Amino acid sequence: MNESFVLLNGELIPTANAALAVSDLAIQRGYGIFDFFKTLNQRPIFLNDHLDRFIASAQQLRLPIGKTREELHELIHRLQQANNIPDSGIRLTLTGGYSPDGYALTPASAGGPNLIITQQPLPSAITPDLQRSIRLVTYAHQRQMPETKTIDYLMAIWLQPFIKETCADDVLYHTGGVITECPRSNFFVVTKDNTIVTPGRQVLKGITRMKTLNIAAQQFTIEERDLKLDELKTAKEAFITSTTKHLVPVVQIDTTLIGKGLPGEVTRLLHRELYELVMEEAAR
Amino acid sequence: MNESFVLLNGELIPTANAALAVSDLAIQRGYGIFDFFKTLNQRPIFLNDHLDRFIASAQQLRLPIGKTREELHELIHRLQQANNIPDSGIRLTLTGGYSPDGYALTPASAGGPNLIITQQPLPSAITPDLQRSIRLVTYAHQRQMPETKTIDYLMAIWLQPFIKETCADDVLYHTGGVITECPRSNFFVVTKDNTIVTPGRQVLKGITRMKTLNIAAQQFTIEERDLKLDELKTAKEAFITSTTKHLVPVVQIDTTLIGKGLPGEVTRLLHRELYELVMEEAAR
Repeated sequence: MNESFVLLNGELIPTANAALAVSDLAIQRGYGIFDFFKTLNQRPIFLNDHLDRFIASAQQLRLPIGKTREELHELIHRLQQANNIPDSGIRLTLTGGYSPDGYALTPASAGGPNLIITQQPLPSAITPDLQRSIRLVTYAHQRQMPETKTIDYLMAIWLQPFIKETCADDVLYHTGGVITECPRSNFFVVTKDNTIVTPGRQVLKGITRMKTLNIAAQQFTIEERDLKLDELKTAKEAFITSTTKHLVPVVQIDTTLIGKGLPGEVTRLLHRELYELVMEEAAR
Repeated sequence: MNESFVLLNGELIPTANAALAVSDLAIQRGYGIFDFFKTLNQRPIFLNDHLDRFIASAQQLRLPIGKTREELHELIHRLQQANNIPDSGIRLTLTGGYSPDGYALTPASAGGPNLIITQQPLPSAITPDLQRSIRLVTYAHQRQMPETKTIDYLMAIWLQPFIKETCADDVLYHTGGVITECPRSNFFVVTKDNTIVTPGRQVLKGITRMKTLNIAAQQFTIEERDLKLDELKTAKEAFITSTTKHLVPVVQIDTTLIGKGLPGEVTRLLHRELYELVMEEAAR
């Protein structure tokens, strides 16, 4: 493989040299935000939506990005040219920056946040037809600042052995029996009357979630509302959405089979339409 | 100032070179633990207690330290010799380590966690007499994994402007009206009948908290139990404890004056005895 590059505060450097001093507030206090999008054949997918959310997350954590949206576009383009990875994942990370006392945020004038843009090969996972289905295991946990895309995945990383032990593919969080989300994806059910339901609050509003809701609204009733664990017993279908995984059917949650325990027709239809939307975006 | 040093994975390096690659799980996912203790006149204060907790935190997050307790002692001694800062704060940080996919923990055989030991000057704050009192503002928040000393201070850093706006010195967390702790210190009240009460669960068990409870138990009834916000109205005294701040009287919480709004006699007594204990430890 050729040498790969990273952008650190706007400067293109070899990935091997991309490091943050240990006084950075991400390392000291877990303080930072990020966003992540794909490129397909060099075309960033839903880039403006991801930049919207990145800018919103930075504002929510009071972290000045120090770059305009146009400058971010240019930086991303520059990184793509340097690395030349047609199908990739690009991650923008903005940390709290170097803090002399390891606690206080320093203003932009004294250094401010660190902006890191990385790119890694990511073969396109999306195909016209479903490739797999997954099983989830539930866990009672409410993410802090759920609507901000912070770097806080403490519980998610910690739960990995639990997921493995239960032979599940991922964990589904709930709070007092109200379902929220998976650590890196949004959750949907299809009810018996073909209503598409997804949790409406205390979750990260995924870009793929939004695209899926837009697609679904053209043919189905959609509801963004509290969704109880009890409702899984009568759900006809279930699926998750994420930038990396697109749309994946969920066939079992804990000991409950969803519907017949096979990917359903509505899931299949929405997956196909999401595939077409992504392909359209890639061809623009 | 002379050049200062840091220990990175057991290697003594100049502080200016102490950096972690951006693929570290602290930067990617906020995954890591730490501990922090003081030295007074080169003597580490309550070091074994801090190492006990550091080792326990590492186990709870499934992060192999890769060093025995004796090796940690030796490393700390080596850092102290290199830096020669008699009154200092020493921080041990253990991060999730470099992760190729930015999510999975890598086993020790493939690198494992990163261990960083840093030292900074910290003039001794403890004096025989109280030096100041503080005011707190309450905020509804439950820390995740509260009994593990993780690097997650997302909410604490985020709340700094809120603390400033309310002209308070720090924030006091509660969950549904049950008090837990401040972001970096434990909270105590003294009731009208001179019982010392501190929250018993869902808090970080501070080393200074433990020392204070040991001291208090010699003369007072102590209770580790749920403490409600309502109880602040009738509390006679309140104080916080931490490694950095030792024991500091709290005279106001939101709009409630604690007792007469002045440091109380029990607080003064416990502060004096804690001072003596720390001085004894420093002279050992």
